[in-house]
Amino acid sequence: MSIYPPHLLKLIECLKKLPGVGGKSAERFAFHFLSWHPSHLQEFAALLDKLPQELISCTTCGCLRDQTHCRFCNKEGKKLCVIASAKDAFAIDATHEYHGLYHVLGGLISPMDDIGPESLGIDQLLDRIQQNNIEEVIIALDSTVEGDATALYLKSRLETLPLKISRLAFGIPMGSSIDYVDGGTLARAFSGRACF
Amino acid sequence: MSIYPPHLLKLIECLKKLPGVGGKSAERFAFHFLSWHPSHLQEFAALLDKLPQELISCTTCGCLRDQTHCRFCNKEGKKLCVIASAKDAFAIDATHEYHGLYHVLGGLISPMDDIGPESLGIDQLLDRIQQNNIEEVIIALDSTVEGDATALYLKSRLETLPLKISRLAFGIPMGSSIDYVDGGTLARAFSGRACF
Repeated sequence: MSIYPPHLLKLIECLKKLPGVGGKSAERFAFHFLSWHPSHLQEFAALLDKLPQELISCTTCGCLRDQTHCRFCNKEGKKLCVIASAKDAFAIDATHEYHGLYHVLGGLISPMDDIGPESLGIDQLLDRIQQNNIEEVIIALDSTVEGDATALYLKSRLETLPLKISRLAFGIPMGSSIDYVDGGTLARAFSGRACF
Repeated sequence: MSIYPPHLLKLIECLKKLPGVGGKSAERFAFHFLSWHPSHLQEFAALLDKLPQELISCTTCGCLRDQTHCRFCNKEGKKLCVIASAKDAFAIDATHEYHGLYHVLGGLISPMDDIGPESLGIDQLLDRIQQNNIEEVIIALDSTVEGDATALYLKSRLETLPLKISRLAFGIPMGSSIDYVDGGTLARAFSGRACF
């Protein structure tokens, strides 16, 4: 591609940092911004500029909170759901299946990315469990190698405490045909089968 | 999905305006912005904010220009390449195959989108051809129904003038196997075949 004006090149470099956005998509987005009305561009720029002040991580649970309160810490109950990122709390909340507290680890154990158990703040989690007299910890982590490793590590750290530890069920996703489900998922659906 | 904080919702709505970005991608981008360093967010916001002032359409050729000059109008020659959008000038320039002037139509004739010939500024193109004593007009428009319609309309308007009118060749893309090329492309490669 030819050399774009410096301002456009800088914008493209910024856009390439977004997940799943390569050079071609970044160029497409940058040229699309050129077609936006200046007032819309200003509005978008102001939203980005104020993002760190408007949305902060709750120091207690790690979820996203606005300046007034953390809606996830306001909940009562003796259940604590351990999640990898703040985004997961919104997804779980939307199911209306769970009404307890959350705890964001901020990542998953991944030696490849230099993320060990010590960087996930497990001690803070243990303190919180004891201070809030938590009775059940629900591990809601990804069904990946990193998610499994983190869940096993969490189990080993938590099983000395007097509480119930559970993990989300793995099985056939809603609406799936059995012949389209991959072998690994089907095997876990068998091993995790429940009485009907 | 659960109700996000208002600031995040507004950001997601803005991101959904980008081409090919739906609700899920917009959420993913918005949460990614939360992980950016505030200084990087400010830099990105400033780039967007200043975009309308930094990059403007050249009033002569319609290409993107910065505040000092239009690099596409600086070129000499008696050839004029008609393109649909300013982005195309960069792509054509990068080939080093063409060294003449450009003219951006700003769109293609598309009755479905309410874009008729009158909104493409053809009169301005005709004036420019006569004022610059252009000898060849190269039509470099998409190989789509809208591109073909616009090219035919341009031809009908230009053929009264004493100039050569050409259009980009259609055929097999570089690196393609003939058995993977679609029938329409293969047919056009046959009808446009050249002596070897």
